[in-house]
This record gives sequence, structure tokens and C-alpha cells, in this order.
Amino acid sequence: MRDSDDRSPQTVAELAEQLRRFAEDREWQQFHTPKNLAMALAGEVGELLAELQWLTPEESVRLMTDPGLAGRVRAEIGDVMIYLTRMADVLGIDLVRAADDKLAEVAQRYPADRTRGSAAKRRP
Amino acid sequence: MRDSDDRSPQTVAELAEQLRRFAEDREWQQFHTPKNLAMALAGEVGELLAELQWLTPEESVRLMTDPGLAGRVRAEIGDVMIYLTRMADVLGIDLVRAADDKLAEVAQRYPADRTRGSAAKRRP
Amino acid sequence: MRDSDDRSPQTVAELAEQLRRFAEDREWQQFHTPKNLAMALAGEVGELLAELQWLTPEESVRLMTDPGLAGRVRAEIGDVMIYLTRMADVLGIDLVRAADDKLAEVAQRYPADRTRGSAAKRRP
Amino acid sequence: MRDSDDRSPQTVAELAEQLRRFAEDREWQQFHTPKNLAMALAGEVGELLAELQWLTPEESVRLMTDPGLAGRVRAEIGDVMIYLTRMADVLGIDLVRAADDKLAEVAQRYPADRTRGSAAKRRP
Repeated sequence: MRDSDDRSPQTVAELAEQLRRFAEDREWQQFHTPKNLAMALAGEVGELLAELQWLTPEESVRLMTDPGLAGRVRAEIGDVMIYLTRMADVLGIDLVRAADDKLAEVAQRYPADRTRGSAAKRRP
Repeated sequence: MRDSDDRSPQTVAELAEQLRRFAEDREWQQFHTPKNLAMALAGEVGELLAELQWLTPEESVRLMTDPGLAGRVRAEIGDVMIYLTRMADVLGIDLVRAADDKLAEVAQRYPADRTRGSAAKRRP
Repeated sequence: MRDSDDRSPQTVAELAEQLRRFAEDREWQQFHTPKNLAMALAGEVGELLAELQWLTPEESVRLMTDPGLAGRVRAEIGDVMIYLTRMADVLGIDLVRAADDKLAEVAQRYPADRTRGSAAKRRP
Repeated sequence: MRDSDDRSPQTVAELAEQLRRFAEDREWQQFHTPKNLAMALAGEVGELLAELQWLTPEESVRLMTDPGLAGRVRAEIGDVMIYLTRMADVLGIDLVRAADDKLAEVAQRYPADRTRGSAAKRRP
């Protein structure tokens, strides 16, 4: 149950708005500096890694077929998205546009016709 | 410049679709196991931390006023979003919903009226 | 209480030896690939960050005066050292020498007389 | 080449001493709060992960046979050790003892005779 009268957010912008209100309601904005949020983001990514660290790559591909593991991974991914969205919002960065701009750069560096299947530094 | 005939994605779903095509065009799906993508995500978060590690919290709040730093942080956040979106897509997880579900849980654990401004374990 | 007849290790080499025996006793060597160990290392660093993420830099300087926090941070640092030592051992890398060699490189890049107190990219 | 009149450190204590002098010579102690050092540590672990992220587990086992990769991984492990040692030193924590104490705890939780080869949460 989330704070009364909230509807579920459908977009990153709505999620950011909800996280902003969530922080304001608890007077947590003071803690939400970009520095602190970057640490929190990294902490959550660490928890996500911990769920996958002993799996083989093949087991990781099938992880959603294990309901317990699937739920934990989904929750950790949710946590990562929460802090990433909050950090971007605090900095005034549009997440999808930042990703798209970066992808455009990567596409230029790794043209499809020259990097197909190559084991070289593959990104992203 | 990104692959021809792409329009800029406006939503996480469109970004995910674009990343899927990007990987297929380069035959990189084979490398995009959840395990590998989690590592790549963590690697990018590490680069983001590196931009902020020596800043004071106050400097981090003002970081967008430094054009060079702002550009680098925006690019790193873009990279983090790329791998987070790609990982969620590979697993069939809706990022915004996973975040919203997690937020609902956190809201229950930290009701606004009892945690206001508290320095206790603050989340998120 | 650790496995019988162990004495406490005094050096990194003795710690590495103890971790090797620990893994062998449990038949965990199969899981201790460099890839998996790097993920486990990152997971533990994430837990360490989580202990510090909401502290001000000043609070972090005093953290050892809070017995509960001090114990948790020490335990997390112990975990990080465990996986770092294990990973280096599996790869045949001498931790102290690898650090010293890297430090020599950094010393050349940042000579003391030209970087004193500078806020530029400070390493390490 | 490191600062004149240094001999190579042989132990963690000597490495810590050398890092202390290194920071003092550059007046970097002011930046070396536990919070900042934890971020720097995580940043270096991110660079280490980046070297391993696209390798199969089997490729990661053989990585030291590739001289270029071996050198990069060794350098990243050196960086991780530098910040871990510096952070422990700033906090007054003995790295080897902290690891040993943690290992003793883990040994109790995962007795050898009951966890042999098991795929359960394996630590460490």
C-alpha cells in the first residue's frame, strides 16, 4: 500500500514525481544529494549482483522460472530503478534521453556491419 | 547518429525495443545473459561513482553547473539506464512497475508520519 | 570458531591459504571462478557502501565511535578482503605487490610537488 | 618509480604506511574520508568487473594466459587493494584480522560437513 491517493506511475516521469513526493513526505530531500544517491544506487546494484554471483550464465538465463529467485531479482531491479530515477530527477536529467544520446554515440563507435558477433569490447 | 530509421525513444518500452534491435544487429544477444548484464550495469555504476567520489555533498548538489562534469555524469547515467533497461527487458521485467511495487513495500515499512526527517535507515 | 587446528592468519599469504582450505573443505572451488568472485567482491562492496551512504563525510570520519556501526563496517571490510584475497589467490596475483606496482605508476602521474592539495582527479 | 627512498612494502601494514605517506605528501588526507574512500573502492571494483563482464566463466579461469588482459586485471586488483588498505587504515581496522574474524563467523554458519558442494548460498 502506497501513500493514499497515488495512482501507479506509468512512465519514468510519473515515477520520478512519486519519488519526489515520497521524499518530501518524509523530509528526506536533505539526504538525497547526488553523492548519497549514487552510493545508494551502487548499494542496490551490489544486492542485485549477490543474487546472480554463483549462477552459471545458463542458470541466469532461466532465473525467472524460479519463483523465489525471480521475485528477489525483480525487487532488486526495482530498487536500482528507484535510486536511478531519483538521482536523475534531482539532477534534472531525463533518463530515457540520456540513454538514447549515449546509445547514439555507441552506435557510431560500433557500427553493426563491422562488429557483428565480435568478441571485442562489446557495448552496450 | 543511430541506426537508420530509428526515432528517438520516448518511453522505457521504446528504449528497450531499440536496445533489443541494437543487440540483434550486432549479434550480441549471446553475450547479454542476465549475469553479464548485471556485471556491465555494476561497471557503469562504478564509473558514475568515480565522477562523484571526491566531491563534497554540497559540490555534488551543484554539479550540473559545471558543464564538463554535467556532461560526464549525464553520459554515465545514460550508460546505467542502458544496461538496466536491457537487463530488465531480457528478464521480462517492467522497470517502472518493479520500482512502483518496491516503493509500495517501502512506504509500508516507513510510514511518513513516523519517519519524518529521521536519520534512521532511510529508504529510498 | 573456525575449522579445527587453524591458527589465525597473520599475513595475506596465510589468509589466502586459509581461504583455499576453506573452499576445498566445502568443495566450493568449482564456484570460485574469477568472474564469480569479482561479482561477490562487488556485492560485498555494495554492502559496505550501504552502511555509509546516508552519513555526512564528517559522520563517516567518526564512525568508529559508534560501536554498532563500527562492528558492521569492520565486518563488511572483512568480507571485501576475503573475496579480494580469494580472487587474487585464484589468479596467482600477489595483492601487496600488485598494489605497490600500481602505486608506483600513480606516483609518476601525480608527482607530489605538482599536485599538492589540488582538487583535480586525485588518486589514490 | 615511487617516491624516493621507499622500499617496496612486503605486508599490508607496510603498504598502509606507504599510502599514508603518499597522501600526506600530496595533502590528500582531507579527501580521504571513509565515505569518499568507499566510493573510490567501489569505482575501482567497477573497473575490475568491466574487464570480466563479457567473459565466460571458463574464459575468466584462463584470463592470466592473455598477457594484455592479465596486466589490466592485475592493475585493477592493485587499485582495489590500494583503496581497501587506505580505508581500513583511516578507520584503524586490521584488514587480515577483520577478514579472519568474518571467516570464523562464516565457518560456523556453513560447517564443512553439511555444505559440501551444495549449490545453496555459498560463502565465501
